[in-house]
This record gives sequence, C-alpha cells and structure tokens, in this order.
Amino acid sequence: MRSTSPISMSMSCQIVLHLLFFIASLFSTHASSLCSKDGSVVRNISEIPSGNYGRDGLSHITIAGAVAHGMKEVEVWLHTFAPGARTPIHRHSCEEVFVVLKGAGTLLLGSSSSNSPGTPLEFKIHANSTFTVPINDPHQVWNTNEHEDLQVFVIISRPPIKSFIYKDWSMPHVAAKLKYPIFWDEDCWDSPKDEL
Amino acid sequence: MRSTSPISMSMSCQIVLHLLFFIASLFSTHASSLCSKDGSVVRNISEIPSGNYGRDGLSHITIAGAVAHGMKEVEVWLHTFAPGARTPIHRHSCEEVFVVLKGAGTLLLGSSSSNSPGTPLEFKIHANSTFTVPINDPHQVWNTNEHEDLQVFVIISRPPIKSFIYKDWSMPHVAAKLKYPIFWDEDCWDSPKDEL
Repeated sequence: MRSTSPISMSMSCQIVLHLLFFIASLFSTHASSLCSKDGSVVRNISEIPSGNYGRDGLSHITIAGAVAHGMKEVEVWLHTFAPGARTPIHRHSCEEVFVVLKGAGTLLLGSSSSNSPGTPLEFKIHANSTFTVPINDPHQVWNTNEHEDLQVFVIISRPPIKSFIYKDWSMPHVAAKLKYPIFWDEDCWDSPKDEL
Repeated sequence: MRSTSPISMSMSCQIVLHLLFFIASLFSTHASSLCSKDGSVVRNISEIPSGNYGRDGLSHITIAGAVAHGMKEVEVWLHTFAPGARTPIHRHSCEEVFVVLKGAGTLLLGSSSSNSPGTPLEFKIHANSTFTVPINDPHQVWNTNEHEDLQVFVIISRPPIKSFIYKDWSMPHVAAKLKYPIFWDEDCWDSPKDEL
C-alpha cells in the first residue's frame, strides 16, 4: 500500500482549491456584471452587456428589462442577426412590436387558429419598417439577406416573456415547449425556473 | 326694394355649397388618411403620417399605437425635436422607455413625493443612450442642443396614454391638467373625450 506525504497532499489540495476559486471567480465576475442592477437614470447602450445566449448568429442586448432593470409592463431589446441567423419558431401571449433599424429579412407567420402553425405566410422586412406580431401567432424572424446584419428593436409587453417554442411548422400548438425564463434572463433569474 | 333673381340666387347657393363641400372634403381626406386603420403586417415608417399636433418643433409619428393600430399593451412613437423644442412638463402612471437615436439634450426629472415637482434634476441624454421615466415622476425632455435635431423612440405601456400637464415645476401635482386623449390621438378618437 502506498503512503502519501501529508505535505504534498496539502499542496495538491491548495492548488486544486486555488484553481476551483479561480474558475468560480471567473463565473461570478461574469454573472455579477451581467446581473447587477444598473441604477443609472441614463445608460449608454454600448455599455450594456451583449451576448448570443447559445443562439448562433444572434447578438442580444436588453435595453430595458424586467430581470435586468425592474420593468413591469414593457421590455425593450436590441437584436442583431448575422446573415442566415433566425429566431426559433415561437409564440407568446404578449404584444410584440419590431422596428427594423438596418438590413433586411423575412417574417414568417403561422396560424394560431389551426391545430398547428402550418405553412407560414412570408413577409419581407427592411430597414425603416415596423411590424406587430399578432398575439399567440407562431412566428419566426430570419435574416435572409446573405450580405448584411439584420438589426431590430423588439418591444414586448408584460415581461418577462413566456415563449413557446416549436421544432417545425407542423408541430401541434400543444406540443410547443415553454421556455421560461427566456435565454437572456436565465443567468440572472432569482425565482425557480418553470420550463416544461 | 331690390329684387334678387332666383337664377343668380340659385347659382350663388351652388357656388357656396361647392366651396363648402370642397373645404369639407379637404378635412375628411386629411382625417381619413390619418385615422384609417392600416391593416398591413409590415409598414414602412416613412409612409406613416407625421405631424406636430400644435407643438412647435415637434415631429410625431405613431409607429404602433392604440388608436392608430389597435395596440392594447404597448405603444411606440418616433419623436423628432428641433433645436430648442421640448415636451411639456408632465407625468403619467404608465411605464415609459426612451431610446435616443440621434442628437443630444436634457432630461428634467421632478419629484412625485413632494407636493409639487420642485426643482428638477437634470440628466444629459445623447445618441445611443436610453432612459426610463419612473412612474408618476413629472418630467420633460428638451432638445438643448442648438445645432441638431434630437430624435427618440418612445415606448409606453397601457395605451392610450393619460398625461397630466404642469405649467411649471412649482405647480402642485393635484393642479396638473389631464390631457386625454393626447395631442396625436385627438383627431382619430372614437370615444367621448375625458379632459378635465
């Protein structure tokens, strides 16, 4: 049976502990900068943390939000979609307004009155256009322009948003999966998650 | 006693009637283009009617609104203030988010906890900044930049907005005057007005 020197054990433990603290500090710094409440009255949008939150080609910024800034009735996001990037197919019961700041793309709009969204209607969207998504209509916003980012302001009511996500347009409405909290609220969420 | 020819009387009446119809048609065309519901899913912001609605130096566009587009929970405006132009000093119980698109100016923020707004705090605002007005705090947005327009997106909750307007910062809160419907909703308002 091999014996282990108490000194070398202690040193190994210290190194492991330091490593663990270092890794933990990296995460806690990240979480605190993302989740700390910014009490400033006027905020510079360039200084608000952005991220893709696991979604390829997305840059999301919460300009004013329930989780980030204590909003109770409206929430405002800035979304930038790289060429080819898109939202999931999803629906929600809140109101939603888009203002397209730059680029072009496609809004796909399914039906909420059939069993599933079905073949969606397609609408071209472009810089300086605006559209409102009807409550509970499954939809998807897609940067179908190959050469330019699509940038939009998104305004929703009754935050934080409860979004139901579809795998495809033929998925029954009842099978769509609740995503709550939404991707960018997860890190800073205080309450128990409610994802089915 | 002079007699008047029935023919000339009839012609005069016709001319007057035509003039009246012409004037009425001018107003009805104006009202219908401003107030007609635009059922398009995607709207070009450049084609949405703008106006100053009696406020010097303001250009207002309702991007998505309760009266104009049937919104129930959020409303979005585009406001452009000429140099020197400003909102009235006012308060409201809905949430309000501003996103500054271009220019610079000043946000003046009074108190809702004293008897009157009092001497307001001043905050510099600039392109690419955002701010939220605390519920019921009297405030004023002012283009204090002499050389450039100030352009902002304004997002409010629970439209249509009920705004209480102050003559100055020393006016008691209870004396502020309700303005409902707000300036840009007046022309297209269906319900009885509720202005005190």
